[in-house]
Parts: sequence; structure tokens; C-alpha cells
Amino acid sequence: MIDIKDYIESIGKQARDTSVEIGRVSTVKKNQALENIAESLNLSRTEIFEANKKDMSESSRKGLDAALLDRLELTQRRFDEMLLGLRQVAALTDPIGEISDLKYQPSGIQVGRMRVPLGVVAIIYESRPNVTVEAASLCIKSGNAAILRGGSEAINSNQAIAKSIEQGLLASNLSGKTIQVLDRSEREAVGHLVAMPEYVDVVVPRGGKGLIERIQREARVPVIKHLDGNCHVYVDNDADLDKAFNIIINSKTQRYGTCNTLESLLVHRSIAEQVLPRLALSFESLGVEVRGCEEAIQLMPGSILANAKDWSEEYLAPVLSVMLVSGLDQAIAHINVYGSQHTDSIITNDLQKAQKFLREVDSSSVMVNTSTRFADGFEYGLGAEIGISTDKFHARGPVGLEGLTSQKYVVFGDGHIRQ
Amino acid sequence: MIDIKDYIESIGKQARDTSVEIGRVSTVKKNQALENIAESLNLSRTEIFEANKKDMSESSRKGLDAALLDRLELTQRRFDEMLLGLRQVAALTDPIGEISDLKYQPSGIQVGRMRVPLGVVAIIYESRPNVTVEAASLCIKSGNAAILRGGSEAINSNQAIAKSIEQGLLASNLSGKTIQVLDRSEREAVGHLVAMPEYVDVVVPRGGKGLIERIQREARVPVIKHLDGNCHVYVDNDADLDKAFNIIINSKTQRYGTCNTLESLLVHRSIAEQVLPRLALSFESLGVEVRGCEEAIQLMPGSILANAKDWSEEYLAPVLSVMLVSGLDQAIAHINVYGSQHTDSIITNDLQKAQKFLREVDSSSVMVNTSTRFADGFEYGLGAEIGISTDKFHARGPVGLEGLTSQKYVVFGDGHIRQ
Repeated sequence: MIDIKDYIESIGKQARDTSVEIGRVSTVKKNQALENIAESLNLSRTEIFEANKKDMSESSRKGLDAALLDRLELTQRRFDEMLLGLRQVAALTDPIGEISDLKYQPSGIQVGRMRVPLGVVAIIYESRPNVTVEAASLCIKSGNAAILRGGSEAINSNQAIAKSIEQGLLASNLSGKTIQVLDRSEREAVGHLVAMPEYVDVVVPRGGKGLIERIQREARVPVIKHLDGNCHVYVDNDADLDKAFNIIINSKTQRYGTCNTLESLLVHRSIAEQVLPRLALSFESLGVEVRGCEEAIQLMPGSILANAKDWSEEYLAPVLSVMLVSGLDQAIAHINVYGSQHTDSIITNDLQKAQKFLREVDSSSVMVNTSTRFADGFEYGLGAEIGISTDKFHARGPVGLEGLTSQKYVVFGDGHIRQ
Repeated sequence: MIDIKDYIESIGKQARDTSVEIGRVSTVKKNQALENIAESLNLSRTEIFEANKKDMSESSRKGLDAALLDRLELTQRRFDEMLLGLRQVAALTDPIGEISDLKYQPSGIQVGRMRVPLGVVAIIYESRPNVTVEAASLCIKSGNAAILRGGSEAINSNQAIAKSIEQGLLASNLSGKTIQVLDRSEREAVGHLVAMPEYVDVVVPRGGKGLIERIQREARVPVIKHLDGNCHVYVDNDADLDKAFNIIINSKTQRYGTCNTLESLLVHRSIAEQVLPRLALSFESLGVEVRGCEEAIQLMPGSILANAKDWSEEYLAPVLSVMLVSGLDQAIAHINVYGSQHTDSIITNDLQKAQKFLREVDSSSVMVNTSTRFADGFEYGLGAEIGISTDKFHARGPVGLEGLTSQKYVVFGDGHIRQ
């Protein structure tokens, strides 16, 4: 068995080599490849399910928890969604080669920008084997070569899927190395993968905070990431209280484990009595634990006193922190200190306050009168999502195909020279 | 004297603190600050010239070379251009707060993107004290706090300029710490400055390759940079040869020391006899040394044989390498191997070949029938330029105000919840 570092380097070199081909290929051919991969996956359905069963039984033997086992499992429905996803990505407009803002300049030259692939994208994720197909499809469509590293618990599923992806690529006369799925599960592999700027242009880690923190620490290439989603709703004294109620319940309870779930509610003191007792009843019946500030717990029967740590916490669970504030300024200040720059929403009918909130809350998604649960590439019309970035460099917010591209300048002249 | 690391950290912390204010301030106030800085510089003209004379005499005593001394010198004309530059930046459209692509989604929510500052920008440069004003103005306009680190040889000029910038900011009721110019010249300072991700969001190094390589190596934050500009012109067999001639002469000789100057000429073999002898005459009279491949030197009297290193060389001098190629494919392959992803131009009247060149040459500026000397933020209509990036992450090509910003998502609803 060759050394893990050499192995990762050889994968990186192959990715860099094939990135030239996939970066230049026509839209027709890229879409054909996505269709061929869907067909090839469908033909290998039985083998892939067998591989997945192997992962499932090994993982449950190792005592993997129920939530992880659920993510690991490929059901018929998930499999069909995977195939549908490939066709949806094929239907998206090709971002590559798009020329925008082509304008004549005073010198007579015409200057615009052409969208180009980033080159080689490394994606590191846990459990869910359908991410392998999703990530592959987005990289192919955006003209990037990809190196995919799934969780070790999904290695049999991912290898079976990788085989189908390779067959689909080859059937389209594209290099089978365009998408490489690592077949070695050493933890060390990730460390090497994120430290090869000569072969990898960007890393997208998807998974728990621990994984992402580690990658951020070790990476020597740019990382598209978010660490956590401590999302806020601020109910202003000029809010429509029925809308506020519905948005809060939806933001908190539509799903508990997602990064755009509401974790901390801020309420204007002057309307707290109208808002909180009603919410307390609903949360009690829905089984949501409320941790409030001293004033909030007075108005919310069954709630408990929050401690200092609660304001920074991403619960990913039926738990919510609640704080009364004196107004918009305190709400904005609180969110900018305790939030995670993910998604924050104001409920108000006051235009100036809405504008101030949108402008001054330093988060990747800022919302007015809307559920935080909408922070999602599909809901934003991106057609797909490779991840969410809470950073400001390159991409911010949900990242779709465009986030996997860059823009170069194109200049047209007719013999123009500079005076 | 406090420890240099503590000093840089305290500068970083102040920058982070003031970045909130400058990020929120109105367009009117930012433009007022630029005007006040121009006035304050003008009032301190005498002091600034005295400081600059001190730098000049100390540097010439230390034996700084003539080119560097020239860049260091503040003439009346350069000073006036500095003031004009401030007013030009004030006249640019404010990028911050701009909302684009606001569209209704199927759920009924309206989603768009708002342009936001990056936060804290560190700019590291050599000699030219006018860069201090230029960099400050671009950061103020784009709503960023800045830490500026000029060359040690310009420290007196930069400190005098810094005083005027601070006065201009204070006169506009903005924090004087919005723009901080380091007043300590230890080499170590740069190392600390580029390794504080908690305080600095991006580093823009401007200067020689040595400086930039060092920063790239040591940086723990994103870097907007180009290492060098080995720019190509490829003369296709379908070129208009008069236009080709003029573009080549302009690209090579309009200025020798700039990063967008032509360094390597590729000529289609079938037209070499029509192109090269005429060029050889002109280059001889202009004092440009030609280093050619074996075939090229046969057609260019006075030229010498190039060695392997010449194809990768950025001469920044009256020297040009010349190679004959068999056609477009070889030209593209050569540029992608030996070029520096800066600026490359094709001279052709053939549409398909022009399109293929634009698409497949992997450079930050790709051009058709135009001089490489146009690769510049002002010529591209950006109104300003903080630097040129040959990377693909975040910004590529000349970087103006937009490159110092990011975009967050804004979402409007009217009580919308996710189904």
C-alpha cells in the first residue's frame, strides 16, 4: 500500500490534469455526462444498495448513533431523488463562458467579464452518500474537477457510487478522473488534501463543527464554509404579531437539526407581554424547551433561566433561547456579537427599521418578515447548493454553481493601442 | 517601546473596532471625508514635501537605486494627482448597500444580494508614498478600515500623509483610526500583520515578487495579488499585420516596467517572414533586445538565441522573447504553461480562433486585437485599482472598489413561512 501522502498527491495531480478538459467542455457534453451518470447509477442500483447495507450493518455494529445511521441509509426514495438531482443540475444554465457587463470604454476597447471554473474543488463531508452525487454534479456543471472525501462509515456506498460516476463520465468521452472519490479512509488524508495549493483550488467542508474547525486550521487553500448557525429572529414593537408568531414557530420547529433553524429569539420589551405567553403555550405543546433571560421567563411558564453560554449556542435541537431587548439597536448589537453570521430575520412593519436591520446586521443572510428556514440555495433560486458560507471572501450565503466559478476579463479591440 | 507583535495586534484590534463605523456610514459622509482629506493634505503640502525630502536624502545616502528613488519622490505634479485621485474616488458610485438581482421566488419571498464591505484591509507596498493616499481613499469608499504599511524608505513621507488623512477623517466626524499607517518599519511587522485572521480580512501586497512571495508564504488570511506579468501576444496567420505590428510595439515599448507589458511574442510560422524582419528593425531602433527561438533569430537580425528560462521571464526591461508556433493550439498551450495568468492577447480576424483563445487561455485578462497595456483598472472602467489578481478566488484581473466588497443575501417576505 502506498504512502497516504503520495496517494493524495497523485489524486491531486490527476485532478489538476483533468481540470483543463472539464473546464473547456461544451454545455451539451456536460449535461450528457450528468444524464449518463444518472443512467449508470440506475443500472447499478442493486450493487449500490448492497454496498450501503454493508456500511449500515458495520456502522450499527460499531454503535453509530441513530441520527448518523439515518443519514447514512440510502432508501429507494433518496436514490430516486439523487437521480432527479442530476437531471435538475443538467437543466440549470451553464455558468461557464457567460460574458457579462461588456461595455465600450473611452479608449474604444470593449471590456467584459467571462465566467470561468475555479479548477479543482475538494469536498469533505460525512455520512450521507447522496452528497457524493450532488457534489459531483455541481462540479461537473461548473467545469471543475473534484476530489470527494466522504465519511469512513460510508466508504462502501461511496465507492459503489464512484464506479457509476466514472462509467457515466467515460460513456461521455470524458476522463474518469474528473471526479475522484477517495477510497482510503485514513484521517490523515484530509490533512494532506487541504494543504496542496498546487493541486487544489478550494475546499468545501460539510459536516459538524469539529470537522470544519479542523479543516480551517489545517487548510493552506481557501475554504468555503460556515461553522454554525446561531440564527435569530427579532420581533420589533412595530411587528404584525400574528405574522411574528407564525414565523417564529416555523423558524424554530419546521426542522430542528438544520443550520438555518432559529436558535435565539429577541423580543422588544414593550410587546413582550403580547408575544411571549402565547409562544410559551405553543412551545410547550411542541416540546420545545425555552431558556430565557430573567424578564422573559416571567412571561413564559415552563421556561428556565438561560446562562451566559446560551446566547452563543447552536442547539440543533428543540431548545430556544429568548431575550427581551430595548429596541433595534440592542437587537443588532446582540446579533453581531452572539450570532454566527448565518441568518437573522427582523419582524417589523417599519421601513426604516427594516432597512437599518438589513444594512447593519453583519450576517450572510438578512431577512425581513420571513422565516429563517428559507436560507437555502434552492429557496434562493440558485438551483442547487454546495454549501453555505458565512465568510466574506469570494462567496457569502448559500453557494450554488456561481460560487464554484470566478470571472476573468475579456477585452475586444480592433487594433487598439494605449496612448 | 512596546513589543512589535503587541503593537501590530493593537493596530489590528483598533481597525476591527472602527470597521463597524466606516461600514455603515452614508455615502455623503464618505465622500465628505475624501474631500476633507484632500484639503488637509493640501494645507500640509509644505510639511509633506519636507518629510519626503528627508526620505529622499536618507535613501540616496543609503544608495537606493535610481528607479526606487524616482518612485519615492513626491513632485508637485504627483501631489496634485494625489488630490485629484481623492476627488475621482469620491465621484465613483458607492458600492456599499447596492442591492442587485432582487427576484421573487416560487415561495413568494423576494431574494437579492446586498454589497457589503470586507471589513479590515491590510495593504503592504513599497516606495511610492502616493499609494498611501490611493489605498486610503479606496478603503474609505468601499467601507473598509485599512492598515497601511509602506516601505521603510518612505516612512517620513507616509507619516506626514497619515497625519493629514487622520485630520480629514476627524473633520468628518469619523474615527481617525479608520486608516492606520504603521509608523514602525521593522520587517517583522509584516509577518504579524498578515497572520491575524481575527483582525484582518484580506491582504493586498503591491510591490516586487520577493515581497509578494514572502507574504503569500506567511499569510493566514486571503491575499489579493499577482506575482508577475509574463504577458504574451500571439499573432495568428489570420491577423491584420499592420494592426499586429502596432499592437506589439505598443505592448512592449509604451512602458517597460509595468506588469502588463508584453514580454513574450508568439508568431504563427506561416506569417513569420512577413512579421519578424519589420519588427526587428523597429526593436533595434527602439533599443529592445530580442531573444528568439532558433527559427525566429533567422528572421530577426541582431537578435540572440533564447534559453529555456527566457520563456518564463518577466523582464520589466527593453527585452523581448520571440517564438514561432505551429498555430493556435500550440500558442494556447505555451501561454498556459509559461505565462503568469496575467494578460495575453491574440491578433486575428478569425472569429472561431478569437473565441477559442478567450475561452482557453487561463489568464486573468484575455484580449483580442488589443495591446496588453490596456490591462488596468482605469482602462477597464473600474475608476480605480487597488491591485491586480491572477488568482481565481474572490477577484481575478484588475481589482477596483468591488474587489474590496462582498455580497450578502437580503430576503423580503410578508409573513412567509417555509412549507
